Amino acid sequence: MKDKPTSNPASVLSCPIPIQQYPYVLSAHGGGGKLMHDLVQRMFVSTFKNPELQTEHDGAVVAVSQGRLAFTTDSYVISPLFFPGGDIGSLAVHGTVNDLAMCGARPLCLSAGFILEEGFAMKDLWRVVVSMQEAAQTASVHIVTGDTKVVEKGKGDGVFINTAGVGVIEHDLEIVPTSIREGDVILLSGDVGRHGIAIMAVREGLEFETPLESDCAPVADVVMRLLDAGIGVHCMRDLTRGGLSSALIEIAEKANMHIHIEEEDIPVTSEVRGACEMLGFDPLYVANEGRFVVFVPADSAHQALTILNSHPLGRDGCIIGHVSAEGRSLVTMTSKIGTRRIVDMLSGEQLPRIC
Amino acid sequence: MKDKPTSNPASVLSCPIPIQQYPYVLSAHGGGGKLMHDLVQRMFVSTFKNPELQTEHDGAVVAVSQGRLAFTTDSYVISPLFFPGGDIGSLAVHGTVNDLAMCGARPLCLSAGFILEEGFAMKDLWRVVVSMQEAAQTASVHIVTGDTKVVEKGKGDGVFINTAGVGVIEHDLEIVPTSIREGDVILLSGDVGRHGIAIMAVREGLEFETPLESDCAPVADVVMRLLDAGIGVHCMRDLTRGGLSSALIEIAEKANMHIHIEEEDIPVTSEVRGACEMLGFDPLYVANEGRFVVFVPADSAHQALTILNSHPLGRDGCIIGHVSAEGRSLVTMTSKIGTRRIVDMLSGEQLPRIC
Repeated sequence: MKDKPTSNPASVLSCPIPIQQYPYVLSAHGGGGKLMHDLVQRMFVSTFKNPELQTEHDGAVVAVSQGRLAFTTDSYVISPLFFPGGDIGSLAVHGTVNDLAMCGARPLCLSAGFILEEGFAMKDLWRVVVSMQEAAQTASVHIVTGDTKVVEKGKGDGVFINTAGVGVIEHDLEIVPTSIREGDVILLSGDVGRHGIAIMAVREGLEFETPLESDCAPVADVVMRLLDAGIGVHCMRDLTRGGLSSALIEIAEKANMHIHIEEEDIPVTSEVRGACEMLGFDPLYVANEGRFVVFVPADSAHQALTILNSHPLGRDGCIIGHVSAEGRSLVTMTSKIGTRRIVDMLSGEQLPRIC
Repeated sequence: MKDKPTSNPASVLSCPIPIQQYPYVLSAHGGGGKLMHDLVQRMFVSTFKNPELQTEHDGAVVAVSQGRLAFTTDSYVISPLFFPGGDIGSLAVHGTVNDLAMCGARPLCLSAGFILEEGFAMKDLWRVVVSMQEAAQTASVHIVTGDTKVVEKGKGDGVFINTAGVGVIEHDLEIVPTSIREGDVILLSGDVGRHGIAIMAVREGLEFETPLESDCAPVADVVMRLLDAGIGVHCMRDLTRGGLSSALIEIAEKANMHIHIEEEDIPVTSEVRGACEMLGFDPLYVANEGRFVVFVPADSAHQALTILNSHPLGRDGCIIGHVSAEGRSLVTMTSKIGTRRIVDMLSGEQLPRIC
């Protein structure tokens, strides 16, 4: 399966750095002189254009009303850089926006730190930058501050991107693992495993009858709808590295609670299921980039599900389990054939450099 | 000149990951399973211990009073990782704390994103982490959220660290380049060029009679004293990549003002001067990590200088120039022999991977 063309309008023609003169990133593009100044101004500041970034100071200044802020960071080292359904740029925006949403925060602004490998193709950098700006617009956040470093060829891998994000918390809920309670219902926002399998398919050259795309998407909007409706959310978690299973295990351990899920209620597409069987993966451990679980009190579960299902990014959302008892840091699952087993944390990893 | 032992108490014995079992970072340390969970818990969360980080959610939640926040980020790719006067860990904390201070903000919290190369020595990671925690304590900031990725051997270089920072602005000043005015006096906080030359000395194996240490330090405290005293600061800038000259040129361009400085007023130690002559560098373009310029109205220049000189990190601070006229994006300098010349931006770089 090949990287299919996306709506990304970045073209060599529109690249603000003259490609003929600078087809590849040079060490000097990170050296603090004219070349770096040009790269930062023309590639980043012009593209991410917004009032905060435009001050071009050592940092950005943003106004906030009294209250609580969420603050998060992620570095993105995904390989390949471009994949069906996204690229490292959109992922770097969606991933951090999603982490803010998981704190129950409305995303306010992002930072972007680039580590470029000398020799990285300027046109690919441009494609990534345009994709970041599109993703930021979709998620209604500004990229307000940034940094660029260049390392020698062989000391990096094209481009690594770190984004940090600040969000505003506009409610009084404590959305953390320790807030989950016995009887809480667990909702899952959609089918699992597509991001990891889409990446693996590109790496392994797998072909599917129906093209398989990553689920990479910004979930803040659907999360805000749940919160704005007054759902008393206890905890949320997006299902990135380690997938659904690892997220639930971490929550169970942190909360010292027993979580039980039903395998047959967890949506997995037939393409993902088939690829997992072929590759020897368990879809419950495969990474997602636009899927999350939300823990809510039982009496608001159906309202929460209705809200989730009314949003494109929660259309296939469903109830997958509940919190069953205190004092046991454990996740159990009833399998499709009715047996009950413990869901364990993986010792290593399934897929390296998935995000 | 060799990397001298510092006060850093990190030892193989105290490393929370068993070095005999895991002498090197493995790919699985970034894979989202048990090994990564252990690394994050035992290496990072336990060492950077604070209430916000302890929630171990997708992000940290911090309380703020109404007002303005500063937000900044930097990735650190310095080579070598350990150098006289610091290491990549202390640098990653000081650098971001300093960027917040340059916005006139009191540093509130930091994020830390690690990109580890498979095979990186666990004991070196531990040394870096302890150094970060010491630097954070010195600067009175908490590292409240983080992320860890591992890339294959040959796709990184030991460790890259991104830190982002949030700070609180407790005054009404607009501390940005466009706030500088004709007649403003420019103060420099101390001698320039030590960081860059210290790094270069390690790389080139240079020996000095007096050991030359980086000036790497957190300057927020001395900056807060200026602001708390009511100095009407117009702009500040720390003198990192590109050094004093590049910082002044960027401010002059952004403000569309003419900045004039006096070469003989700029402190440079004889060791730095000698090394620069030998290596063919101009100390005014060499990177610093604990030096900054501050632009103040002429009538508060002497009060500002007194405050600066009363602090250990501004002891050698001095007045080096002034803002002379509007409408000319230019930096000029009167040299020691009395000639006047334009200070130009370098086209490339002097020293790669200096920060």
